[in-house]
Amino acid sequence: MIDLATFEHPAVTTINGKHWFHELSEEAFPGQAFSLEIEEVLYHTKSAFQDILIFKSSKFGNILVLNGIIQCTERDEFAYQELITHLPMFSHKAPKRVLVIGGGDCGVVRELIKHSNVVDNITMVEIDDMVIQLSIKYLPQMAKFHNHEKVKIVIDDGFKFLSNLSQVDESEKYDVIITDSSDPEGPAEEFFQVNYFKLLSNSLRKNGIVIMQSSENIWLNLDYVSDLKHKAQKVFPNVEYSQCYMPSYTSGQLGLLIATHDVENNLKVPTRDITEENEITDKFKYYSEKVHEASFVLPKWADSQINK
Amino acid sequence: MIDLATFEHPAVTTINGKHWFHELSEEAFPGQAFSLEIEEVLYHTKSAFQDILIFKSSKFGNILVLNGIIQCTERDEFAYQELITHLPMFSHKAPKRVLVIGGGDCGVVRELIKHSNVVDNITMVEIDDMVIQLSIKYLPQMAKFHNHEKVKIVIDDGFKFLSNLSQVDESEKYDVIITDSSDPEGPAEEFFQVNYFKLLSNSLRKNGIVIMQSSENIWLNLDYVSDLKHKAQKVFPNVEYSQCYMPSYTSGQLGLLIATHDVENNLKVPTRDITEENEITDKFKYYSEKVHEASFVLPKWADSQINK
Repeated sequence: MIDLATFEHPAVTTINGKHWFHELSEEAFPGQAFSLEIEEVLYHTKSAFQDILIFKSSKFGNILVLNGIIQCTERDEFAYQELITHLPMFSHKAPKRVLVIGGGDCGVVRELIKHSNVVDNITMVEIDDMVIQLSIKYLPQMAKFHNHEKVKIVIDDGFKFLSNLSQVDESEKYDVIITDSSDPEGPAEEFFQVNYFKLLSNSLRKNGIVIMQSSENIWLNLDYVSDLKHKAQKVFPNVEYSQCYMPSYTSGQLGLLIATHDVENNLKVPTRDITEENEITDKFKYYSEKVHEASFVLPKWADSQINK
Repeated sequence: MIDLATFEHPAVTTINGKHWFHELSEEAFPGQAFSLEIEEVLYHTKSAFQDILIFKSSKFGNILVLNGIIQCTERDEFAYQELITHLPMFSHKAPKRVLVIGGGDCGVVRELIKHSNVVDNITMVEIDDMVIQLSIKYLPQMAKFHNHEKVKIVIDDGFKFLSNLSQVDESEKYDVIITDSSDPEGPAEEFFQVNYFKLLSNSLRKNGIVIMQSSENIWLNLDYVSDLKHKAQKVFPNVEYSQCYMPSYTSGQLGLLIATHDVENNLKVPTRDITEENEITDKFKYYSEKVHEASFVLPKWADSQINK
């Protein structure tokens, strides 16, 4: 067990006798921080790829932090996991083969399993096995389907995995690819470049859909978000930007970029009639048809730049 | 000038040599805090009503803090000011007389002035004159219309002001009443009770609309938000809950409760055709017709409790 009184970390301070973790990033969001009170530090290490900190917070359950950035809290993780999963899954008519790049906490896999009447095959490619193992131990509600019969976990660099895929048959490609990576500062850097969109494109079946977290948000860096969309548009003719609203992500929100080659598919509304899918949707806490549509509505100034 | 190196405040700490303000509240949001880096403390006092802190942040401009709670930052204040103002203003056919309870930073007044082709009379009732005077000095872009010819400022307790109003003629009552108060912990406590909704009701003209900030949000305390809506429903037959998404409010969002006696008025869509109001809407950064509608869409679990 780690003694909190002597635990030293540049982002942990004491305020009024209580220990707080501050999410700080001079590069990504200087001058602002989301802070959580720590009840107990559960684990801290440097893996081969990144600094991993797991602590029990006083009010948000267990928290996974990679390179100083909060990846998920047990209290609000469902918002992000549901939106990044169900947006593409309900925008696709019959998503049978699904690929997850990253997603080591296995939260996206958990959401995908809700679609088991449609999905045949879920492959998750995570670079850092330690994130998976720690999630199984400390985030059991997120990782509970890591060994489900439809799930295949590959420990590899997602970029490399996709590079090898480009050669394979259409049948081995994917209907939906979800990039649930960490931010560009770290091992996920190459996921935010045009070449990555090309790889995604080559790995998709006809009418396939990709989605990824955009790392920044409209308040922090609208130019970055707008540029990222332009990069995607160099490869995909149909690209949209959606937002997930939740307390533990910087500025209380995180952007998602969704794209497809199918110009007929209006990604802003579910393609399938979700009211007929009670078996799936009964289990949702965040996602609904209305949430799907509203997630694409941006404040006027951001909309006029991103969607011009 | 206040020397930051020797400035002592329970919510200000030093991290890696930089000074940070932490928004802390054991009552309202234990265990979580939004933190901003301080560049310079501009003013700190205890007025007759509350603790007032104004500082220049490194990235969010000047910040007004009342009783330790961030009221506004120059960087994102427009989101809240626009939504709380334009939701009721565009939900009403012809809002001629408007009352603002609180709103000492004068941001709502600034937004109301954009409707000057419709509005005849704006009255603002703020209990703490010092907040107005400090906003004129330190938040000049927010307070710029405090002395506009259509604006009358009354320094008084909003609750008392409304109590005296109940007797007056219909003609002296209001089409729109915006309660832009601080949270219940402090002088604004009585704004969150059934009696306040009764006072509002008595002060409204036929088909009038009221709106107020809900203090809590769905992530912090869904029961509280739900109870507040029930309190409003004891007085008004038509009540809806909307959300504003912005970085500097707790959890990245703030709820707004909007209500009217007019059961025919669908508050979730603008009543007036806002596309014909370019003269007004050209000046908006946050509000649009789509933002109006989407602000009422809640995550599924919250929707099923609040809108059941």
